[in-house]
Parts: sequence; C-alpha cells; structure tokens
Amino acid sequence: MKEVSKLLRKVIRLQKEERLIPHQSSVLVAFSGGVDSVSLTDALLELKDFFGFKRLSLAHFNHKLRVEADREEEFCRGFAEERKLEIFVGSENVGEVARSSKRNLEEVARELRYRFLRSIKDREGFDLIATAHHLNDLVETALIWLSRGAGVEGLLGFEPKEGDIVRPMYKVKKEEILSYAKVRNLRWVEDTSNRDPRFFRNRIRMEVIPVLKSINPNLEETFLRTRNILKDEEELLKRLSRELLYRARNEDCLEVKVLTQAHVSLQRRAIREFTGIRNFSKVEQVRNLLSKGGEVSLGEGVKVVRKGAFLCLKKSL
Amino acid sequence: MKEVSKLLRKVIRLQKEERLIPHQSSVLVAFSGGVDSVSLTDALLELKDFFGFKRLSLAHFNHKLRVEADREEEFCRGFAEERKLEIFVGSENVGEVARSSKRNLEEVARELRYRFLRSIKDREGFDLIATAHHLNDLVETALIWLSRGAGVEGLLGFEPKEGDIVRPMYKVKKEEILSYAKVRNLRWVEDTSNRDPRFFRNRIRMEVIPVLKSINPNLEETFLRTRNILKDEEELLKRLSRELLYRARNEDCLEVKVLTQAHVSLQRRAIREFTGIRNFSKVEQVRNLLSKGGEVSLGEGVKVVRKGAFLCLKKSL
Repeated sequence: MKEVSKLLRKVIRLQKEERLIPHQSSVLVAFSGGVDSVSLTDALLELKDFFGFKRLSLAHFNHKLRVEADREEEFCRGFAEERKLEIFVGSENVGEVARSSKRNLEEVARELRYRFLRSIKDREGFDLIATAHHLNDLVETALIWLSRGAGVEGLLGFEPKEGDIVRPMYKVKKEEILSYAKVRNLRWVEDTSNRDPRFFRNRIRMEVIPVLKSINPNLEETFLRTRNILKDEEELLKRLSRELLYRARNEDCLEVKVLTQAHVSLQRRAIREFTGIRNFSKVEQVRNLLSKGGEVSLGEGVKVVRKGAFLCLKKSL
Repeated sequence: MKEVSKLLRKVIRLQKEERLIPHQSSVLVAFSGGVDSVSLTDALLELKDFFGFKRLSLAHFNHKLRVEADREEEFCRGFAEERKLEIFVGSENVGEVARSSKRNLEEVARELRYRFLRSIKDREGFDLIATAHHLNDLVETALIWLSRGAGVEGLLGFEPKEGDIVRPMYKVKKEEILSYAKVRNLRWVEDTSNRDPRFFRNRIRMEVIPVLKSINPNLEETFLRTRNILKDEEELLKRLSRELLYRARNEDCLEVKVLTQAHVSLQRRAIREFTGIRNFSKVEQVRNLLSKGGEVSLGEGVKVVRKGAFLCLKKSL
C-alpha cells in the first residue's frame, strides 16, 4: 500500500500547491489506454471526493497508426464501461494525413489528438483536459528541447497547468506509476510505438535516461528541483527585463541610453520581447546597434533601425 | 586545409576574446599523448609567434594504470624530442593509491595528475598550465554535473580560464580535432580506458551524446550558445544577490525585512552566500525562518537563528 499512497500523495500535494483543478470542475481525461492514463483515471476516481468533480469523462483518440489501434479502442470502451465513465472516441488516419502533407508524424499525431480533445471539450462544455504526463515525460521533454537549443525555457519543459490542460501526475515518476498499477491490479494496453527507436523521445527514454540514472538514481527528483529553482529565476529575469522595456519604451522605439546602462542579459531579453525574435545571432545583431548606427532586417518586411538616440521598429511597405 | 584552419581559427578567436595567455608567458602543456593533447601542442607550435610564448614545455603523468602506460610514456618522450620541446615526466601507481584509500579511481587519478602538474609549474616557474579540454568535454561535463544536481552552475561546466589553467581548444569540437590531426598527419596513442563503460564520462560520450546529436547535429555549438547566455544571466543574478546581501547584512546577521521584500530567487542566493550551504532543502528551511521563529542547524556546530528582526549565524560552543 506504500506505493499506492506515494502516487496518490503526490497528486494530492500538487493539487494543494497549485490548485490545479478547482472544485466542481468538469474534467475530460485524455485516455490512450496505456499504463499512464489508466493509472491517472484510477487515481482520480480514488480521489473523486477530494477533487469534487462535477463530471469526469474519458476521451480516446484512435490514431489508426497500428494494427492494434482498433483493439486498443475496444479496450478503452471496455474500461470506461467497467468504471461507469462516459467515453468520447474520435479517430483519424494520422499516417495518411502526415504522408499527404509531408509533415512529421509525431507532430501531426499530436496536433490531431489535441484538436479532437478540444472539440469534445468545447462541444460538451468541459472545463479542463487532464493528461497523464508525468515526471519522466518532463525530464525527456527538457532534454529534447535543451538539445534543440531552446535554452532555459527548453529546460523548464511543460508546466503542471497550461491553459485548459492540467497534469495531475506532474511530480510522479514512471516507476511509481508502474508500482501503483501493479498494486492496484490494473490492466492496460502496451503501445508498441513507445519502443520505436525512430522516435527521438523513445531513444531519450531508452538510451539516454538510463545512463544519466546510473550517475544519479534520483535523477527525476534532482531534475525537478533544478527546474523549479530555474523557473523562479526565469520569472525574476522576465520581470526585470519587462521593467527595463517599460523604462526604455517610447512608442515603436527604445531609448538607447536606457538599454545601454542595463546588464547585457536584460538587453538581450528586452530586445527579444520588443522584436519578437528568438534567433540568438539576430538578437546580438540588434544589440550591436546600441553602439553603432545601421539597421537589422528581421524578415517579413520588418526591420530595426538605429535612429539617433533610439532603436525603432520599421515596417518596409 | 580548411579543417586545419578551423581549429586554428577557433584557438585564435578565443585568445583574442578572452586574452587566455598573456604575451611572453611560460606555458606547460598537460600532455597525455592522446589526439587532443598532441593536436593542442601542434597547434600551439603553429601559432607560437601569435602567442609569443617565453617557454612552451610538456608535462606527462604516467598513471601506471594500464600495461600500455610505459609505452605511452615513451611515445610522449619521443614526440617531445621530435618537436624539440622539453618534457617533464612524473609517475605514480594511481590504482594502488585508490585501492588503499578506497577512493574513486577517476577522482584519485585527477588529483594526483594535477598535483604533479602544479609541482612542475611551481618548481620550474611556469605561469600557466594548458589543457586539451575541448567543446565535447564541456558538453559531457555539463551533462554529468546537471544529472548530479549541480543546477545551473553545473550546466555552465568549466571555463576557458580558471586560475592557472587555460583551455585554448575550449570552442573546438572533437571532430574538428580529429580532422586537424589527420590533415596534419599527426601520430598519437589511443587511451583504451576512454572506451571503458565503467566510467560515467565514457557512457555519456558513447551512448548519450550520439542520441542528442541525432536530435540536433549542431549539439555542441547549440550547447555553447545556451551556456554563454546562461553564464551572463548567472552573473547578473549573482550581482543582484550580492547587492541584496550587502543591504541586508548587519555583522553576523541579516535583516529579515530587507530579505522578505526581495524576490524568492534572490532570497535563496543570498542565504546560500551568507551561510555557505549548498543543500537546497536546508536553504528552504532557512528561508522559512523569514516568516516564523526558530532555528536551523547547518552542521558542524553552526546554526541559523531567527532573533526578532534578524536571522543570525551562531556557533554553538
């Protein structure tokens, strides 16, 4: 029972800390039928008095990607019936859509899945969508984004609550989910594509994380702590750069003198916010305009021009 | 010739940006005989007029760890003779020392190697020790430290210059070193322990980095850019927390009101600097004293005590 209480305790603690799901909410659980979403649903049912749901339902999206897809849909319908939950099922041939639009399969799958979830939410009047994302997903996401060059923002990964998405298992480790599912005698479907090495995320999970865990068995908790410290510091830096922007701003221009007196990190952040550009070397090019004349094109007919004591945004017509 | 100029150009650029090695310096190269230190030495000789060395010599430490160790020492002596460089050789049975002191082999090897390098530097009056650390070493180090929980400071890895250590190849990728060595027709010894999976660093290099590079082939450059942005932000945060500490400080105490008005990130940093503690949950315990009475033991007979309007450091006698 220790393992059961561990997962539940973490879900309860997060709810208390972050007020993830307001009392009397209608919640739609994104339900794949895998161990994560089965455990999440089971835990939410266990804690239904604590959360005080107005309505709790499942939504399953059949990606039609694998031969097992239809059997998995059947499993999901069966699970819902057994637990006396309403289930909404949608389906689309994701592979077809990806091929014909020549887009990345994971991306298309994600986009269509969320479009389905939102359509059910809107049509049925749910308040929130709960997903089964957990701490290992967070670590994987952070590593992928950091590798791609998303900087600290990448390292922060996703949040426990973003708009209408809530992630009650944000602080729960995968191994805790597996123990929970075992002790609770749950059944689920194994998604074989989770082992497909063509997906980056699977290689991160199967090849990278085990090595990092050999360095530190508490990798996930360690990462979460680092992440939360960074998150607070990120918030401070954002606040400071917004203050700087406020002081430097003059309609569509920034006062050079105000920027020059600020720390280089705040200059960078203020320029990013002012111009909307993310590309680091572009930001540095704009920053160079602080010490000399000239202009930098931002693309799409927009440029930043040094005009005497000001940096100004200009649209070339 | 493009590959040769790439490595040399990066070494030159770093020297110009960071003034790594002042003109007329006496430099001791940490020389293992591997491709990195052979390439570094070759590059420094190519650029000897640019750097204007007063003296350039090699130091080789024989760890006596592998049967090849003595042959490698011979190789190093031969290389030095061929290049007309003075070489200092030291040796110690590192395995023996690690076993008898029951300490980690990598750690002991590192400690004894640096002790040897410093002893030669001091005895012979060298100004600086140059090591062959490169950009891939930096990425590996950062991943190891991040995994261990060293936070942003871990992610920053090492610096191009730290005390008497300089790293001229800081921005050079391993593949650039290998191309350089090939085009320059260099010979070197292969350290078989670099493939030993018992060492964390080797698993990071052989198992983790390749996966991350499949996500982003420019991983090293991307990492360096992220690192440098973080480095600047870290400097700003340090400055702000030092200012806070200065305003809050009152002999061995901190004024609670001044701390309370500051951002949580600066509170944490100021408390870390004030108490010297690194442990996050201890820092949070001390931070909790801002809103209530009590005391927190820091170990070794030192504690932080809330005394009215102040937090004070106390030594229990």
